Amino acid sequence: MPDKTLRISRAAGRVAANRRPVMVAIAGDSAAGKTTLTAGLVEALGRDRCVSLCADDYHRYDRAERRDLPFTALHPDCNYIDILAQHLQLLASGQSVLKPVYDHSTGLLTRPELVEPNDFIIVEGLLPLHSKLARAAFDVTVYLDPEEGTRRDWKIRRDTRARGYSAEQVLAELVAREPESAAFIRPQRRHADVVVRFGPVVGHDDPAVPLSAELLLRPTICHPDLSEVLQPGLSRAMHLRLDRDDDGRPVDTLHVHGYVDREESIALEKAIWESIGDAAVRPPDCLGHVGDERSEPLAITQLLLLHHLLEAAR
Amino acid sequence: MPDKTLRISRAAGRVAANRRPVMVAIAGDSAAGKTTLTAGLVEALGRDRCVSLCADDYHRYDRAERRDLPFTALHPDCNYIDILAQHLQLLASGQSVLKPVYDHSTGLLTRPELVEPNDFIIVEGLLPLHSKLARAAFDVTVYLDPEEGTRRDWKIRRDTRARGYSAEQVLAELVAREPESAAFIRPQRRHADVVVRFGPVVGHDDPAVPLSAELLLRPTICHPDLSEVLQPGLSRAMHLRLDRDDDGRPVDTLHVHGYVDREESIALEKAIWESIGDAAVRPPDCLGHVGDERSEPLAITQLLLLHHLLEAAR
Repeated sequence: MPDKTLRISRAAGRVAANRRPVMVAIAGDSAAGKTTLTAGLVEALGRDRCVSLCADDYHRYDRAERRDLPFTALHPDCNYIDILAQHLQLLASGQSVLKPVYDHSTGLLTRPELVEPNDFIIVEGLLPLHSKLARAAFDVTVYLDPEEGTRRDWKIRRDTRARGYSAEQVLAELVAREPESAAFIRPQRRHADVVVRFGPVVGHDDPAVPLSAELLLRPTICHPDLSEVLQPGLSRAMHLRLDRDDDGRPVDTLHVHGYVDREESIALEKAIWESIGDAAVRPPDCLGHVGDERSEPLAITQLLLLHHLLEAAR
Repeated sequence: MPDKTLRISRAAGRVAANRRPVMVAIAGDSAAGKTTLTAGLVEALGRDRCVSLCADDYHRYDRAERRDLPFTALHPDCNYIDILAQHLQLLASGQSVLKPVYDHSTGLLTRPELVEPNDFIIVEGLLPLHSKLARAAFDVTVYLDPEEGTRRDWKIRRDTRARGYSAEQVLAELVAREPESAAFIRPQRRHADVVVRFGPVVGHDDPAVPLSAELLLRPTICHPDLSEVLQPGLSRAMHLRLDRDDDGRPVDTLHVHGYVDREESIALEKAIWESIGDAAVRPPDCLGHVGDERSEPLAITQLLLLHHLLEAAR
């Protein structure tokens, strides 16, 4: 009897103790698709198991103050980069943090809010992978790297519809931000386990053809074995290829063309889905949503990330 | 030569590394004299070597939200007690924190501000000694415990002059807060290395006679040896006595009566001052200021705390 009591209290202690959450970074430039990707992950994992937070809340200056500064909000000096890293480390060790809040609608810094860790913490933003200390907090790191014309279209659409800017203003901002994008945002790409590049299918610039995705799968984490379902020649629209990244490092690249047949993509989704084996996760049909449309490449990207999040949770 | 270079670079490394600051808590109820005590310490140590922060910035609710709550701002549940402890631990280990800000003039929670550690961190507030984790961050802990009539007079004077309340409102608030003062503020007294009780000299309720101070010096830290200058019978107005606290624990009590001769208090100040031996600290004449007046008991209290801060810095 004493033995059993001891075992029970030990087990209870384990549950009650600060459990290390699984943490994923989704980095990328403005309008790279971070929020859309995140929304599907939260939906699939369940809101009650997730915390998603935006690294852009760690802006050091409000909008009015930034007008007098020689750099934009993309610059690390415009953000509390060290405090972001500190908070990520605290969350990773199961502690709560008092997160600053930047109000995008007013451009003001407002009262901070308590963030309590949960099973999964999704951190999206411009610079979550900038510092080494921040990177160390993550189990999985993602960089969204859409083809630049695609990102420009996305940014114009969002900022003119939801943020009250004119298309000319958005284009001018893209030009103004380009040097800092090159200096601080894009270098994060090389620290990502998964790089996702949405863009038009080469040779198909018809806007009616859905966007394709190219996923760089770095061997920095252990990816599911897709060689069976993606045997060479089996699919016209999806293939897995051993490749070299721009810097020469070996990677797998997974191409999913926008015109993939639903039947073919289901086979791939099924293969990844079966590797997950977590009954609490909602099936793939809640994935791939872009507004009212469904994107097969997005659904597959999200499924692959779910695989990694759930593997890390084991 | 290599040896010397090595030694120099090691020394430089030591300086550059996050040095652990000396941390002191000054706890006490509303209008207990925390700000006045702190101001003299900062003045003596030099503003460039000190950070002073107010634990009341960790209020969880703003003034409007508190109106609907069943407790006042004195209640631990009304404060981010765990985040305060976390921030104190981070500062104690030489890290910066992004501290929340409560604006006493508007009653609003506003944008947080960066606090970078310095040689000395003085944390004053209602509840800095409430949690065990917070207490562990401090080198020296002080509780201000003025005689209740004295505190009431101080609170009425401050809140009617500086915060726009009527005397009746202040008295009503004191009554409303009393149960939480008893439950959460006063219990911190037993965790203090030094307890300071200002009040009228017993038998002298003439308001023209300056207030006395009774200092409880607990053997939880090593106090300077004052036995020589405070030999029994030597002074009518100052004495050191072996005593028992309310709970029976042995303490030294140092009495400094308000009517002490300047000459006598100078002898005591000199004895403490000589124990300090830090040329960077300003001499005792910047201490003891209460508005335009000078209080010998306050000056001696501040000198004693300076002794402890500088000892801890060694």
